[in-house]
Amino acid sequence: MFQKLALIGIGLIGSSIARAARLKGLAKTIAISTRKPETLDEARALALGDFYSLDAAEAVRGADLVILCTPVGAYGAVMEQIAGALEPGAILSDVGSVKQHVLKVVGPLVPSGVHFVPGHPIAGTEYSGPASGFPELFVGRWCVLTPEKGVDPVAIDRLTSFWGAMGSNVECMSAEHHDLVLAITSHVPHLVAYNIVGTVADLEADTQSEVIKFSASGFRDFTRIAASDPVMWRDVFLTNRDAVLEMLGRFLEDLAKLQRAVRVGDGPGLEAMFTRTRTVRRSIIDAGQETAAPDFGRPHPGDKAEPAPLSDLVREHGGGDDA
Amino acid sequence: MFQKLALIGIGLIGSSIARAARLKGLAKTIAISTRKPETLDEARALALGDFYSLDAAEAVRGADLVILCTPVGAYGAVMEQIAGALEPGAILSDVGSVKQHVLKVVGPLVPSGVHFVPGHPIAGTEYSGPASGFPELFVGRWCVLTPEKGVDPVAIDRLTSFWGAMGSNVECMSAEHHDLVLAITSHVPHLVAYNIVGTVADLEADTQSEVIKFSASGFRDFTRIAASDPVMWRDVFLTNRDAVLEMLGRFLEDLAKLQRAVRVGDGPGLEAMFTRTRTVRRSIIDAGQETAAPDFGRPHPGDKAEPAPLSDLVREHGGGDDA
Repeated sequence: MFQKLALIGIGLIGSSIARAARLKGLAKTIAISTRKPETLDEARALALGDFYSLDAAEAVRGADLVILCTPVGAYGAVMEQIAGALEPGAILSDVGSVKQHVLKVVGPLVPSGVHFVPGHPIAGTEYSGPASGFPELFVGRWCVLTPEKGVDPVAIDRLTSFWGAMGSNVECMSAEHHDLVLAITSHVPHLVAYNIVGTVADLEADTQSEVIKFSASGFRDFTRIAASDPVMWRDVFLTNRDAVLEMLGRFLEDLAKLQRAVRVGDGPGLEAMFTRTRTVRRSIIDAGQETAAPDFGRPHPGDKAEPAPLSDLVREHGGGDDA
Repeated sequence: MFQKLALIGIGLIGSSIARAARLKGLAKTIAISTRKPETLDEARALALGDFYSLDAAEAVRGADLVILCTPVGAYGAVMEQIAGALEPGAILSDVGSVKQHVLKVVGPLVPSGVHFVPGHPIAGTEYSGPASGFPELFVGRWCVLTPEKGVDPVAIDRLTSFWGAMGSNVECMSAEHHDLVLAITSHVPHLVAYNIVGTVADLEADTQSEVIKFSASGFRDFTRIAASDPVMWRDVFLTNRDAVLEMLGRFLEDLAKLQRAVRVGDGPGLEAMFTRTRTVRRSIIDAGQETAAPDFGRPHPGDKAEPAPLSDLVREHGGGDDA
């Protein structure tokens, strides 16, 4: 499908692209470039590509598809290195979690004749690094493309097919709309999770050890999100500030209402609020973006080889003690 | 171990106790009572006990262990029914998520000669109802007991052995301390999760459908928590108000600082904050309260029968894109 795929950066996402592209035969050659020699060595040891270089310009030379997979904060520096080496007719894309900033920073540095189609695969785990990738990461997940008006539709189609071949559903939208939707689905949830884990980290030492013990009561789910890559998330909040502050403002308004309901003991109000949120989860499971297995299908310590007895779950959403 | 175990209420927790007690031979007879006939029919169809009654007093008669497994808000009404039927020497316990309120409401209604040892198993899933229970639910999980001073140590020991036999680690602490620790590990996380899902439910319809699509970017983890039983959670916030408001206050102070860091673009401050939270998760995994599998070991749509390739995960916590 492509002659040469160049991946600049080879963390969870980059290495998953390398594995999926290899498995599905989407590129004849895969070139990998990283800034750190030890990361490149790791990629080489895992045999993720055909060609490895610390020089990003060398990696992109002759490539008909180049994907930036570094943290967004590094895009400017990467573009200064590779702009002169990009082939006319090549597709340039990325996997960053913010898109208006990427258009602003990368856009002006794209040579004419190169097709710039920013992208964002909505997939991941809390792990990172070349070893953490796996080829099925994108299967059943959405990938959003945010090309500006006037970009060659053939280039958009080719990139759409590339992501489709890796198992993704692809959707095009404006960078502005992407950033607003991701602010509420991803950026504010991460901020809140980081924040609550931080609040716990400030507790007295003896209380903190009990928080660890009793984390199964809800808290531990937040810690997964709050274990994500600090540099990547720093860049997200530096580059999607306005949308994050807008959505955080709505969140805080709603929380003030809920806080008041707790303070005045408004039982019917609390119950009504807690009831309407369940339909959202049902929709997510129906849309195939989540498993219906209890506790995410997380293994329970007492399980032998079996997951929790799903066949028993005749009820949909009964709600649970300390879910 | 016990002659007759009476379970008042048979949801996720009650039915898991019934299954575990049966499996481990912890009671000769298991009596089950519920308020709703259809729930009792369900319990009977699942063969969870030996004796079924809509009359709670009848269920507890002759029982040497009685465990209240209804929402906390129903305890007062249940006690009015059963107080006169409790056997002298019996142990009375519960599984509620708040403990000071339980001491206050139930304590005065406990006949002399009955040993009142409130309990809280820190275990659950987002599902509820008799069918959602499973006997391994408590394995490796903590169960907190909060007896008041002067309660017979033999009764506490017997209840400790009962929970230990079901796989739990048991710890005694004051009801006040329990409520404060649970406020930050469980109640505030639930309030925040309910709140963010509520904020999404208020979005314009077209944006909301995109939130469903792109929920894998972090949001869906919150929806699991926000799918929990509304009545149970209403009761938690009505009965642990002071501790919840105290911990929510700390959370909001911290969030104001984080909001400011986003607003002024304080990159080093954000990165430092996001770095320190990762150690908390590591501690939870080390303490055996969480799985180290990426994404909670949640199955990925492309998996055949295999989970994500854990053997590849040489790094501990690299952090991930959209984790």
